Amino acid sequence: MIRAAAARLDGHVRPTPLLTSPFLDEIAGRRVFVKPECLQHTGSFKFRGGWSAISALDPATRARGVIAFSSGNHAQGVALAAQRHGVPCVIIMPADAPQLKIANTRALGAEVILYDRATDDRDALGAAVAEQRGLTLIKPFDDPQVIAGQGTTGLEIACDANALGLRNADILVCCGGGGLSSGIALACAAEAPTLRVRTVEPEGFDDVKRSLAAGEIRSNPPGAASICDAIVTPRPGDLTFPILKRLCGPGLSVTEAEVLRAMAQAFLRLKLVVEPGGAVALAAALSRPGEITGDAVIVTLSGGNVDPAVFARALSTLP
Amino acid sequence: MIRAAAARLDGHVRPTPLLTSPFLDEIAGRRVFVKPECLQHTGSFKFRGGWSAISALDPATRARGVIAFSSGNHAQGVALAAQRHGVPCVIIMPADAPQLKIANTRALGAEVILYDRATDDRDALGAAVAEQRGLTLIKPFDDPQVIAGQGTTGLEIACDANALGLRNADILVCCGGGGLSSGIALACAAEAPTLRVRTVEPEGFDDVKRSLAAGEIRSNPPGAASICDAIVTPRPGDLTFPILKRLCGPGLSVTEAEVLRAMAQAFLRLKLVVEPGGAVALAAALSRPGEITGDAVIVTLSGGNVDPAVFARALSTLP
Repeated sequence: MIRAAAARLDGHVRPTPLLTSPFLDEIAGRRVFVKPECLQHTGSFKFRGGWSAISALDPATRARGVIAFSSGNHAQGVALAAQRHGVPCVIIMPADAPQLKIANTRALGAEVILYDRATDDRDALGAAVAEQRGLTLIKPFDDPQVIAGQGTTGLEIACDANALGLRNADILVCCGGGGLSSGIALACAAEAPTLRVRTVEPEGFDDVKRSLAAGEIRSNPPGAASICDAIVTPRPGDLTFPILKRLCGPGLSVTEAEVLRAMAQAFLRLKLVVEPGGAVALAAALSRPGEITGDAVIVTLSGGNVDPAVFARALSTLP
Repeated sequence: MIRAAAARLDGHVRPTPLLTSPFLDEIAGRRVFVKPECLQHTGSFKFRGGWSAISALDPATRARGVIAFSSGNHAQGVALAAQRHGVPCVIIMPADAPQLKIANTRALGAEVILYDRATDDRDALGAAVAEQRGLTLIKPFDDPQVIAGQGTTGLEIACDANALGLRNADILVCCGGGGLSSGIALACAAEAPTLRVRTVEPEGFDDVKRSLAAGEIRSNPPGAASICDAIVTPRPGDLTFPILKRLCGPGLSVTEAEVLRAMAQAFLRLKLVVEPGGAVALAAALSRPGEITGDAVIVTLSGGNVDPAVFARALSTLP
């Protein structure tokens, strides 16, 4: 499925390179290879999954359009993929979402339907709109074609890692619901099986780490907060977790301070804008070398959609 | 010479893609294709010229080492190219250069010799060191092999533009001494001759624009200041200007406010960190659409080595 998704994405997705910096190698104490999905269309890997899912629909179903629940990267990825397929797209967003995200999603051709978090039943609202218009729901991670699309990131990593002769390397993946992690793990199990995928989460939202340790799904306690808004999902997916359990090493987690410092290093050494949730893997590489076993580490930067004020906070950690 | 340089750079330089954003297209009123040389090794295109010049030396000369005068991107480009060739490198820098730039240049393996701007004769100091150790001077732009190296950027642009079917497009190039502009102009004259190169400079340092208008070299009046530190050269080069005069359209210039807004758009829409001097071409595309004639515009982002405080200033222009 991942190879088939890659064929459908060919010419539409932006293949991203593996970037390096001798300065990052020195901090990490091993070679660091960075996969900058912040440079992907819409600023995150989510465009891959959105394109994969929409392109896999049968033409009649696709023509009726798609719907997604998201105020973030998934919304923009699905919106642009639908626009480029020339099909309708409805995005259900909370009315208090940042104006810029609402405007961006609309600018990518989607119809945005706002709901009130306090009084509206989001799922019921979405289901009613979907049924009325015959729209297909594109889930953010627990969907085989979405996982296959994110997995194309893993095919690119495997291809480049094999060309570089990397065999004993950890692939650190920013992890929310596990779509990107499970997709990369499946791709690399087939194409670069000596590499080991490790999920990375922010402290307080380390449900995947604890679930991997327990061998069964654990949820996050409610009420936690994190600057890593892109990856603060309540629990691993029903489809993604069994894949992660079978294929990944122990999960990692990082602090907010480590995330901000990683964002600053990406600015300084890679000239890349990374959002907090997209910087957790680099943070683990730079701040938790003792928890990594590979000679080298491959790090996903999963997105770059960060508010200027948060980015300025990260810059303020530099001397 | 550019094709020969490309062969020597192959596998050592980082080929950069052409990036796009529908949001930038809308601001510019035409399709915008961005060439992100801020992602090049050392954070600017200067690594290309440094590698080209060093790799072109005969082995015995190269083994004695190289020397360059620079406190900026040329220093880091030459230092890394020399380090990867395994040859000595001396960089002559003013003692009041930013500590980070001195530290970075040393970390890339160069010996940094500091001079006092007020009391030392930089050229005499460099000449003495070079003669004593048999070092070869690598000039920042007025050197055929440096121009050939920067021109490899143009070969990549021409290849991608031809694949995209771009014929009536302006290539906007951030211009200091003219090494990158003349190299790209030569490459595209051969490989994509319907494209037109336009130099872009900051106001107050528009010597190339005025020289092109006059048909002969004009210098900048002394005493001007600009945040675009990477491209504030006093006059066009003796080698580069005749090439620019023969091949380029009229020069463009932009204000500091336009530069800061372009840096903010690169952050927001491309997730790239661009330095002021590296953002002048994007600034022209976004703020001076009436001075551009092509259906599309190809914009170089020539570097990303910017101080955090200056970058924060650019972010503060966002709503």
